[in-house]
Amino acid sequence: MKTKQILTAIQILIFALVLVPSALAQEGVWKLGPRTLPASVDVSDVMRETLLKLPTIDVSAAKGLVFRTDEEWEAWAKEGNVPSAAAARALAEALSVTIQEDKIAGVNVHRVTPSAIDEDHQKHLFVYIHGGGWVRNAGIAGTIEPVLIAAHLKMSVVSIDYRMPPKHPAPAATDDVIAVWKELLKERSPASMAMGGTSGGANIMLSSVHRFKDLGLPLPGALYVGTPAVDINMIGDSRFINEGVDRNLLSWKGIPYNAGVMYAGEHDLKHPYVSPVYGDFSGFPPSYFISGTRDLLLSDTVRVHRRLRRAGVEADLHIYEGQSHGDYIALWNAPESAEHYAELNAFLLEHLAMPLTPVSTLPAGVSKEIEIPKSVTY
Amino acid sequence: MKTKQILTAIQILIFALVLVPSALAQEGVWKLGPRTLPASVDVSDVMRETLLKLPTIDVSAAKGLVFRTDEEWEAWAKEGNVPSAAAARALAEALSVTIQEDKIAGVNVHRVTPSAIDEDHQKHLFVYIHGGGWVRNAGIAGTIEPVLIAAHLKMSVVSIDYRMPPKHPAPAATDDVIAVWKELLKERSPASMAMGGTSGGANIMLSSVHRFKDLGLPLPGALYVGTPAVDINMIGDSRFINEGVDRNLLSWKGIPYNAGVMYAGEHDLKHPYVSPVYGDFSGFPPSYFISGTRDLLLSDTVRVHRRLRRAGVEADLHIYEGQSHGDYIALWNAPESAEHYAELNAFLLEHLAMPLTPVSTLPAGVSKEIEIPKSVTY
Repeated sequence: MKTKQILTAIQILIFALVLVPSALAQEGVWKLGPRTLPASVDVSDVMRETLLKLPTIDVSAAKGLVFRTDEEWEAWAKEGNVPSAAAARALAEALSVTIQEDKIAGVNVHRVTPSAIDEDHQKHLFVYIHGGGWVRNAGIAGTIEPVLIAAHLKMSVVSIDYRMPPKHPAPAATDDVIAVWKELLKERSPASMAMGGTSGGANIMLSSVHRFKDLGLPLPGALYVGTPAVDINMIGDSRFINEGVDRNLLSWKGIPYNAGVMYAGEHDLKHPYVSPVYGDFSGFPPSYFISGTRDLLLSDTVRVHRRLRRAGVEADLHIYEGQSHGDYIALWNAPESAEHYAELNAFLLEHLAMPLTPVSTLPAGVSKEIEIPKSVTY
Repeated sequence: MKTKQILTAIQILIFALVLVPSALAQEGVWKLGPRTLPASVDVSDVMRETLLKLPTIDVSAAKGLVFRTDEEWEAWAKEGNVPSAAAARALAEALSVTIQEDKIAGVNVHRVTPSAIDEDHQKHLFVYIHGGGWVRNAGIAGTIEPVLIAAHLKMSVVSIDYRMPPKHPAPAATDDVIAVWKELLKERSPASMAMGGTSGGANIMLSSVHRFKDLGLPLPGALYVGTPAVDINMIGDSRFINEGVDRNLLSWKGIPYNAGVMYAGEHDLKHPYVSPVYGDFSGFPPSYFISGTRDLLLSDTVRVHRRLRRAGVEADLHIYEGQSHGDYIALWNAPESAEHYAELNAFLLEHLAMPLTPVSTLPAGVSKEIEIPKSVTY
């Protein structure tokens, strides 16, 4: 009798575990079973040791996390900004990079400058748009990657500290990018400037370029598209496959999706100004892409890469074994990070114009000393 | 009492399900939980409908499948070759491509020729090495992708019907490729020839190029590396993450791994002649790569892509949303397949040399009719 009862209990459990979920299955929706994932092997020691130390990721809390009020969103943003600002300052000091607050066309920016600018980048500018899920990384917290870019590429960076939700949903951020871009165009050729960012920053950058096109503004000489969030909707294989595989961006559900919805404001979630994958990419500048095999936004990256290719745009895709979302920033001291910025630099050197400007390169004051006689035969 | 017994039974079950596996956990090995994966959205209708029709994949049988005798391997190879040969013939007829058996340097080859060769490919040759897990696709069964290449690129293809295990382990296959390559070099410039293949074919191609280098032979003008199997060992994130996600190559365990071990013969499984990712890629020709977000060999693809980039080789990576291993062949009528071959064609047109050959392009027989007097002043 006892054995029978136990068997019945086990049968009920099996019924609950197996039959109920399969009855709920939708067409084409696969139920992937559990699996093991060892730490990546063909990666640098820094990356491998980082992965070896990490226990299995629990995504359940992240998936359910939603904020109901502006205050909750603001508190969450602030909570993240404090350590990021500290990291940006520490990194800048360690890498001899200076960060200066400034305004361009009334928009807050940070001018991020290496101790020495590469000879080939003297006339170039990197216009950076920070990430942070549309909500985080206001102020100096948004300058971590600009510091890395300045240090690795030996290039001047202007990082746009755009307005963010909950107070300022779209199109505030792209409005700010447009204002800065118009002002920069007064003193520089568009083809001498790169524009780009990572994650939500790449989203805002790509949407901004769609808007530049619609406004008839000239486009940057090259784009940097780092593991971009190109679709606010829950679309893309990797958002399902790499949930719990990506050590940085745990799930699209929870904060990322809800921040995206808040950012979109009154826009449809498939409007190219908030989900840039839905835009027309014809005429886009040459673009550099990076993602990784563990990246939750691998699909976002390759979806836009293909859209550019279909539009006939030169677009270089780089996928790194073992990398989660933005690991080239998080693991800035891994060789893979240096490799990424070396690739980006080579791409920019190939595609950015080195404009001939009227700025004299003769020693200052020389013009006053020497007068060329009018009668001379030149 | 009954309730207590049931609870005890459940506790034992929970213990078995939760505690035992965690006790067995190794450092850095993550236990990924079950998840759902809907059919890919941002893909063509052909691909989406294919995915919508498929139920969840059961990989358990594939993982456990191993053959013990040569006869079992040979039977498995034959079983696959029959429908593949029929498909190659049907495809060739539908696409007006001819397939002719021939021998080059004593090695069986198929000459696969489109009805009309593109003007820009008149002097080019695609040297193709078929896939099939090192064991399958002997004979005409190996000509499916050559037919697609001939039809899409309007280019002549020579497909090498190399010797395979169980009778002929490595280095027989690469020996055959070397023999054909040496013979082709007698009448064509290396830079006018592309070389490539998919899956196991890309493995043999990359190993062959390592051997060309070691032998001091000139290298092809460009390489085609389709979702390559570059490592016989069970290494690479996607081999774990995409197990049961890839609809074509279900698992690396089972047949693929065991076929690889059989193919390797007396070679160490990390020898570059059988696992080409471990070779030195300096001086490799410009190379084109393709994989997909559901591909079991996504990691293999990006691992070699990065090795080439680190060696300073021009290498273009293309990753398609929703594609499993070799879907550009399996779903040859999907727009993604045409897009892939258009990309490959653009890459080859950019990188293959169009050699100036002594072959006359004047109408035949004209030379006999007109004699230029020796006394004329030219």
